Amino acid sequence: MDSKKPNRRGFLRGSAALAGLAGGAKVAKSQTQGMPQKKIDDLIAYGERSRFVNSIRVPVAERHSPDEFGLTFHVLTPLQDSSGIITPSSLFYTATHRGSFVPDIDPKEHRLMIHGMVDRPLIFTMDELKRLPYVSRIHFIECLGNRARPTHKTVQETHGLTSCAEWTGVPLPLLLKEAGVQSGASWIVAEGAEEVKGASSIPLGKAMDDCAVCYAMNGEPLRPQQGFPLRLMVPGFEGIYQIKYLRRIKVVDRYYMTYDDYGHINPDPKVAALTHEIGPKSVITFPSGGQQLSGPGFYEISGLAWSGGGAIKSVEISTDGGKSWKAAELRSPALPMAHTRFGLHWNWNGQECTLMSRCTDQLGTVQPTRAEVAKYWNQPLNKDYRVPGADNSVQPWRVAADGSVHNGLA
Amino acid sequence: MDSKKPNRRGFLRGSAALAGLAGGAKVAKSQTQGMPQKKIDDLIAYGERSRFVNSIRVPVAERHSPDEFGLTFHVLTPLQDSSGIITPSSLFYTATHRGSFVPDIDPKEHRLMIHGMVDRPLIFTMDELKRLPYVSRIHFIECLGNRARPTHKTVQETHGLTSCAEWTGVPLPLLLKEAGVQSGASWIVAEGAEEVKGASSIPLGKAMDDCAVCYAMNGEPLRPQQGFPLRLMVPGFEGIYQIKYLRRIKVVDRYYMTYDDYGHINPDPKVAALTHEIGPKSVITFPSGGQQLSGPGFYEISGLAWSGGGAIKSVEISTDGGKSWKAAELRSPALPMAHTRFGLHWNWNGQECTLMSRCTDQLGTVQPTRAEVAKYWNQPLNKDYRVPGADNSVQPWRVAADGSVHNGLA
Repeated sequence: MDSKKPNRRGFLRGSAALAGLAGGAKVAKSQTQGMPQKKIDDLIAYGERSRFVNSIRVPVAERHSPDEFGLTFHVLTPLQDSSGIITPSSLFYTATHRGSFVPDIDPKEHRLMIHGMVDRPLIFTMDELKRLPYVSRIHFIECLGNRARPTHKTVQETHGLTSCAEWTGVPLPLLLKEAGVQSGASWIVAEGAEEVKGASSIPLGKAMDDCAVCYAMNGEPLRPQQGFPLRLMVPGFEGIYQIKYLRRIKVVDRYYMTYDDYGHINPDPKVAALTHEIGPKSVITFPSGGQQLSGPGFYEISGLAWSGGGAIKSVEISTDGGKSWKAAELRSPALPMAHTRFGLHWNWNGQECTLMSRCTDQLGTVQPTRAEVAKYWNQPLNKDYRVPGADNSVQPWRVAADGSVHNGLA
Repeated sequence: MDSKKPNRRGFLRGSAALAGLAGGAKVAKSQTQGMPQKKIDDLIAYGERSRFVNSIRVPVAERHSPDEFGLTFHVLTPLQDSSGIITPSSLFYTATHRGSFVPDIDPKEHRLMIHGMVDRPLIFTMDELKRLPYVSRIHFIECLGNRARPTHKTVQETHGLTSCAEWTGVPLPLLLKEAGVQSGASWIVAEGAEEVKGASSIPLGKAMDDCAVCYAMNGEPLRPQQGFPLRLMVPGFEGIYQIKYLRRIKVVDRYYMTYDDYGHINPDPKVAALTHEIGPKSVITFPSGGQQLSGPGFYEISGLAWSGGGAIKSVEISTDGGKSWKAAELRSPALPMAHTRFGLHWNWNGQECTLMSRCTDQLGTVQPTRAEVAKYWNQPLNKDYRVPGADNSVQPWRVAADGSVHNGLA
């Protein structure tokens, strides 16, 4: 029965198929049969996923081993298995600084200090922060290192350093107004509590706009790999700004060079501008590299789009390598600076083809092709070409006649 | 330093407090120090929460033991610890049928049959369902058994049989249109695969509106306790309709009495009407029963509001037992049939008081007080009075002068 592929007007099963239901409809036995009471009690307290679900994160190969600076982990979220726009907290991508994996912080001991060019330096305990007005918003985060090598095989490898969650915390403008920002201040420097300090300079204008000091994600306290107990959210900016284990915000009058500076200040102003704000960017998660279509017939092309410039307005899909484009459907709420799920019903004729997606954000900015980016940077277009800054160019997936799916850039 | 309570214009810390930062600012040691490599690899594959976070679900006391019908579990989500609107999948409430806890289903073996008054009976494998157009939406679910006893102590006990997640699946109207609903059909009966069948009759009008056959929640496959591999979403209707382990949808021409029938068809039409659609309903999650305020000063009153009638339009809060009401702020997106987070900054003067919230949904329906409900049902208003159907009356929390918080109905 499984081998008989459905088609758009061919869901119909005859009486033979209906008779086959007896097998599938048998009563399912309990997950807890023969399970010790202790294990049942644990499952009641805190549920687990099915033993048939095995999706996992994988480390970025190049950053999995100790180097001269110590142990570094960049861990990729399995976008190929994703549904909707929320990334499960256990599968959210992680990027760490050299020399530290995940700090083990007792929230009772943690403090946030706001100081520098302020009238009233402040120190908060976690309990004090939780007594302040807060907001809950759904936002993506993306590491600038996403798509470090254009020729990677799977979407987990090419795009897995982005995830999306609901974040809850205190608006940073409220804290800064309470501290009293002095005239002449123009930047903040935010610092985390890892062994190797993560610190980033952020324009004061952004800090006073939509940033927040967050203690919760997806309805529970932040996970350790996401900055427990406190993380700075800088919506739409690249991941390096979303300081984990946040312990200090200093208000200053200039950009500070810090450990985290990966070329944000560059002689070429085009580079500096690019690395602050992400996107607009989109990628097809199904079908994507390494996946296998079972033969001609209909499929749902599915993917994610996001932009640091606001909400996603529209997404288009090409099934002929960019010659023609069709409007995709937005299949989730399209929230500002959040992953947005898109899809398109597609009937594959079994011939080799190349799938692409491109999005447009609420500012009207259109995701560029790789050729457009290369032309912009005046670089030769070849497979080794690495786009400077956050590479938001269109990702092509090549579907071979045998149904196997490959990176169109490899 | 911790014992010094902040107040609205008193965040300011002097130099002594600043000097104290040295303690909090010490470099955090790594969570992975001394950890076996196997455990580190596991944390990379699938992250965990902090050892300092211990929020758990608890069973409904009355339903935790085997009875004459077998083992039944109703497990309450810890709303008192919640942030935002997403419930973590591990903490999502669970209600099970008598005689079965959690079926252990291999998705490769699972089938969904659509039959009855249709032109083309259909059977789908899970792989086939995933090849169809889908939607992702954030919706609450609530069990009619929520608030089974008005005098329970904590918000987990009084309101913990509701949770909210992002659900992804195939729109049911698409499947029903594909099957071809015959004229004269007016209901569907949906059935799960537990040992004791869960089956509910649902009006065809609702089935053809916004229902969906869902395979994912919060970005990953459904959890076993939430119906893995397939659950029917019936947005805004009470939990019994959101059939878990969905294996069969039969199109019929009348309401069917099934195992799940808990008085949905009742001689009194007012009762039947009430139990289909939930709310509008709201509850303050902080401060709530069993929590403790540390003394006079400012706090954030925080809570959740939801309605089966659509999006939440507004929430009001009373800090004087219902004599006066102030507009609360909506602190999250207000999505249709979804939990909505509200808050209000509050300066507690240290005197006994009673906190209440009431919401209004997009239909303009206002959450009733308990007195209004009792009057409507012509019942005496006392603490043992159990509202028929889904009790959506206002929940009062009494704050005693010592800062302890109690159920105002107890």
